[in-house]
Amino acid sequence: MAESAGLAESWSHWLKRVDHCLENFLPKKLSDQAALPEAMRYVTLGSGKRFRAALVYATGHSLGAPTGQMDIAACSVELIHAFSLIHDDLPAMDDDDFRRGKASCHVAFGEATAILAGDALQSLAFEILADQQGMYTPEKQLLMVKILAQATGAIGMAGGQALDLSITGSESSLETVEKMHKMKTGALIVAAVNLGVLAAGSTDARLLASLECYGKSLGLAFQITDDILDGTTDALTLGKMRDSDKRNHKPTYLTILGEKQGKALARHHVGLAKQALKDLYIDTTTLEALADFVTNRQH
Amino acid sequence: MAESAGLAESWSHWLKRVDHCLENFLPKKLSDQAALPEAMRYVTLGSGKRFRAALVYATGHSLGAPTGQMDIAACSVELIHAFSLIHDDLPAMDDDDFRRGKASCHVAFGEATAILAGDALQSLAFEILADQQGMYTPEKQLLMVKILAQATGAIGMAGGQALDLSITGSESSLETVEKMHKMKTGALIVAAVNLGVLAAGSTDARLLASLECYGKSLGLAFQITDDILDGTTDALTLGKMRDSDKRNHKPTYLTILGEKQGKALARHHVGLAKQALKDLYIDTTTLEALADFVTNRQH
Repeated sequence: MAESAGLAESWSHWLKRVDHCLENFLPKKLSDQAALPEAMRYVTLGSGKRFRAALVYATGHSLGAPTGQMDIAACSVELIHAFSLIHDDLPAMDDDDFRRGKASCHVAFGEATAILAGDALQSLAFEILADQQGMYTPEKQLLMVKILAQATGAIGMAGGQALDLSITGSESSLETVEKMHKMKTGALIVAAVNLGVLAAGSTDARLLASLECYGKSLGLAFQITDDILDGTTDALTLGKMRDSDKRNHKPTYLTILGEKQGKALARHHVGLAKQALKDLYIDTTTLEALADFVTNRQH
Repeated sequence: MAESAGLAESWSHWLKRVDHCLENFLPKKLSDQAALPEAMRYVTLGSGKRFRAALVYATGHSLGAPTGQMDIAACSVELIHAFSLIHDDLPAMDDDDFRRGKASCHVAFGEATAILAGDALQSLAFEILADQQGMYTPEKQLLMVKILAQATGAIGMAGGQALDLSITGSESSLETVEKMHKMKTGALIVAAVNLGVLAAGSTDARLLASLECYGKSLGLAFQITDDILDGTTDALTLGKMRDSDKRNHKPTYLTILGEKQGKALARHHVGLAKQALKDLYIDTTTLEALADFVTNRQH
């Protein structure tokens, strides 16, 4: 319980930091630039758990880096996440009208502005990572851009969403659903961990490999829990329409495994994630607490 | 005329190079990854004038850099351009069913895949720029990522498209239309010139300023000509639906100025572009020929 209290306190601090930094990075509302900056801010600011940002901070902290060193990396991952939420919610995709407790971007601003806001959030993520801040070495900055771009593109998030759409409405194996989620949500979660390592300035290959393993297991535990919450939690708690997967006839961990087996598998992956942290000679308290949070969360 | 023949020959060579490189950078078609890689390839390969790539190559050549040094930069700009075409053509945007002589991406692959293909092409552009190729210094690579990201986002292409949508269907001043086009198409054209300079390894501030000025004027001349061609050329020559602007009730240079005055303004900007190249002590032959091409082109 001590870890959880510590995590909650750190998380609340990270959340304020990342919101403050995002506020500065996002374009200001300009009268003649239509609704674009407003839509970008609407989706990105003032809501969201910032789980991916927390992962960047927690990873960096476990390596002894000061919080400020992770801000840019954390923001870049949250910008990519915000962009993906907008595009995933579009009528041509999952057609969700409700997100983070309010109307989805395309409901609030129209489809065209929503598509463009997603596009502009993606480029903003790479812009802030590439900007000369003197915070990281140029080589590490470039590696961060590359890792984040790969996690976003055809072999990552976009590829996973495409796979998701292609299996929607059909019977799918656990293997296919897992592959899809490794790309769709897992890739960005692993990227968050990798960016945390790079932001902290580490180049230890063994450490990187272990933390990547942690990120992969964490990503799966996160998604299994997400699927279960989508099918079993009320919309008010969830902040988005429940049963979205069912409405869209999506094969999920819940439909394939059921709640009990699904929860057991999530716990199994949390165990694997923690296992990967063993014998690393770093302070893994917060990363372990984050892993526990993933299966204990209510939304 | 000698310059034009030279340009045509160089251009044809650049076109082959950039197509070959893009072919390698784009993800291969995988059976289980749905239509995403196929859609990305469909839009990016085998068609397109590669005007933006030509600008990168021509700029680099004017500074004495070997062709191979500009390949990555040229590809990154073309990937961003391809992504923008897909999203601009979507039903929620300009709703164009015909592009580069064939069905638009969303017509051929469906809206969801088209949105994702655009998203993945954007991240691919940053991925290849950030990848460790040893071709450019890390500092120059980072600057390329930043310049391209800015040209793509809220103060560039996405912002310009948002402004375009906001003025569609209304009376607009020449000033507003110009501002919109500076963002929507001009930003990427200027970025192409800047990336050419960086790829060639130059850091001469005066040169950079002059070439940026060249790019800005060229971008306006390009767009004015585009507006005129859209309203006056048949679809077969154009490779896309003509009168697209009119159908969408868009204020354009053609609607505001008419054909004659519009062409005169385009020629004026070409003159300004060439003026910016004066006294630069570099070989500007190809850049001048490119400027002439912009107003003489038929599609």
